[in-house]
Amino acid sequence: MPHILLKAKLSLELPRINEHLRRAAEALPSAVQPLVRHIFEAGGKRLRPLLTILTARLLNYDNEDIFDLGISLEMLHAATLLHDDVIDNAPVRRGKPAAHTLFSPTAVILAGDALLAEGNVLVTRFHNAALSHCFSKAISETCAGEIAEIESQRDPLVSLDRYLSIITGKTACLISSACKMGAIVAKAPENIVEAAAQFGENIGIAFQLVDDAIDFAREEETGKPSGGDLKEGKLTLPLRYYRESLTEKDREDFDEAFRGGNIPDDQCRVIAETIRRKGFDNKTRTYANSFLEKALKALDVLPHGKEKELLHEMTEFVRDRKK
Amino acid sequence: MPHILLKAKLSLELPRINEHLRRAAEALPSAVQPLVRHIFEAGGKRLRPLLTILTARLLNYDNEDIFDLGISLEMLHAATLLHDDVIDNAPVRRGKPAAHTLFSPTAVILAGDALLAEGNVLVTRFHNAALSHCFSKAISETCAGEIAEIESQRDPLVSLDRYLSIITGKTACLISSACKMGAIVAKAPENIVEAAAQFGENIGIAFQLVDDAIDFAREEETGKPSGGDLKEGKLTLPLRYYRESLTEKDREDFDEAFRGGNIPDDQCRVIAETIRRKGFDNKTRTYANSFLEKALKALDVLPHGKEKELLHEMTEFVRDRKK
Repeated sequence: MPHILLKAKLSLELPRINEHLRRAAEALPSAVQPLVRHIFEAGGKRLRPLLTILTARLLNYDNEDIFDLGISLEMLHAATLLHDDVIDNAPVRRGKPAAHTLFSPTAVILAGDALLAEGNVLVTRFHNAALSHCFSKAISETCAGEIAEIESQRDPLVSLDRYLSIITGKTACLISSACKMGAIVAKAPENIVEAAAQFGENIGIAFQLVDDAIDFAREEETGKPSGGDLKEGKLTLPLRYYRESLTEKDREDFDEAFRGGNIPDDQCRVIAETIRRKGFDNKTRTYANSFLEKALKALDVLPHGKEKELLHEMTEFVRDRKK
Repeated sequence: MPHILLKAKLSLELPRINEHLRRAAEALPSAVQPLVRHIFEAGGKRLRPLLTILTARLLNYDNEDIFDLGISLEMLHAATLLHDDVIDNAPVRRGKPAAHTLFSPTAVILAGDALLAEGNVLVTRFHNAALSHCFSKAISETCAGEIAEIESQRDPLVSLDRYLSIITGKTACLISSACKMGAIVAKAPENIVEAAAQFGENIGIAFQLVDDAIDFAREEETGKPSGGDLKEGKLTLPLRYYRESLTEKDREDFDEAFRGGNIPDDQCRVIAETIRRKGFDNKTRTYANSFLEKALKALDVLPHGKEKELLHEMTEFVRDRKK
């Protein structure tokens, strides 16, 4: 049975992580609390806090305040989701109505700002300059990744390098920072901090690649409409494989429709089916595995311990994730 | 001739501050650079950088990197202006078209996020935990102040304490942090850091009170439409004095219209004229002076030096400002 250790650990840690998130929400201005509770209670895997906690413990840091460090990145993550939702005007987030459909865009923007600010405060309370620097870089790179993604929207010619740099910025950087901050707070030597960061960056890239593959899975499996990225004009890897498989004529038609952002729903469905039938989603997962291998190599550098087994299992969780 | 020292100093420092802001803008994702240049080039008094620089120099810190510290708060300030403009949907900022009327709200939200993130990075590069903590608190309190202001919008019964706490959060906290960070980077003792923070907080409160008085000045004097705060449903001090001067019946009518947010333009003009005629704007300035006195008392604690004279002049600048 896979991930049994991870599941057992999660069942122990998740309530504490959620309790800390609840308390952090209570420290925010009361006006934004309902909105922040909405986003926290909508779920989420709490991957980032868990990575910080496991990395720190593996490196012999187990103070209670590790939860504050862990949730700081979850708060930053939630802040980006809130601002994204306003920007994308997406109706659904984590299977529930997106925040801006229930609250005003003003409240959502400010709640995002407040979450980011309070996450930052949690980190600076450690009075550890390297931690603060790491967190500030995480904010800045995540933000740059999102901007780059929007810049490349509806561009069928975006290069693979550019796509990788976008997902590194918007997703992997934060996950990398989660591991790195766990190592920094544990006062690990430089090579260990770097290995933790590399581990995180590579599972982060793999996580997003798998996410991009799942985006074309059947709605019955994921509970989300299939092909959302296609509709949003994101040339993710499965879609890139699809586009490359087209004849020159079909590719020109696809490019025109992709640029126009007006691909009808039934055509989106056909494209998603083709991607699954031709296995472009699985090919994306195979590519993701190459990053997971890099993650495991980085993990080798870290000392042995039961948290290392959990981190190892986490790469399997990222690999096998179906929704 | 008043403020002659300050003006001379500004004419020396402003080009360097602006040069650093230009360079900081170039470090941002290229997509948001035009927007960020727009907000920087629209002007601004650069009060915050100047306060950081002067405070640090007075306390014998004069490294070139003081400009980076100074502009970090200007970047945070610009970020809040950008998010505010989207939220308020205000057509004009600093006498020029507001950013979101020229760029998409998406770009404005992201440019704000990027500015805040990069300002934060500039601070964490100092590898000084107290500086990072101060900056993170500045973000968080500024954000809370803005949320509180929106919560109190169109509420004619908002208390004076609440109003003061709003302007402390949204304006004075950042100005206080500007002075405090100058003292922290100079490794000043705790009582000096605290005096610098107090100086900043009190001129910050005074600055906003004067701003609120200026809001009811004639358009010919300021270049801005008179009574903008009234239209936005902000019960600022001049408006509070006006409301308190009304008969019970008139006050009920005012409250109803204020709550509804539907005060017609010609009535706004009449109210602005009444505020000027009855001197409620000047009464607000008198109240602001009480905070400037507190600022000067805090300034007394700081050591002597030519920057102290400039900081002294700055209180006069805040007091005498007409637009």
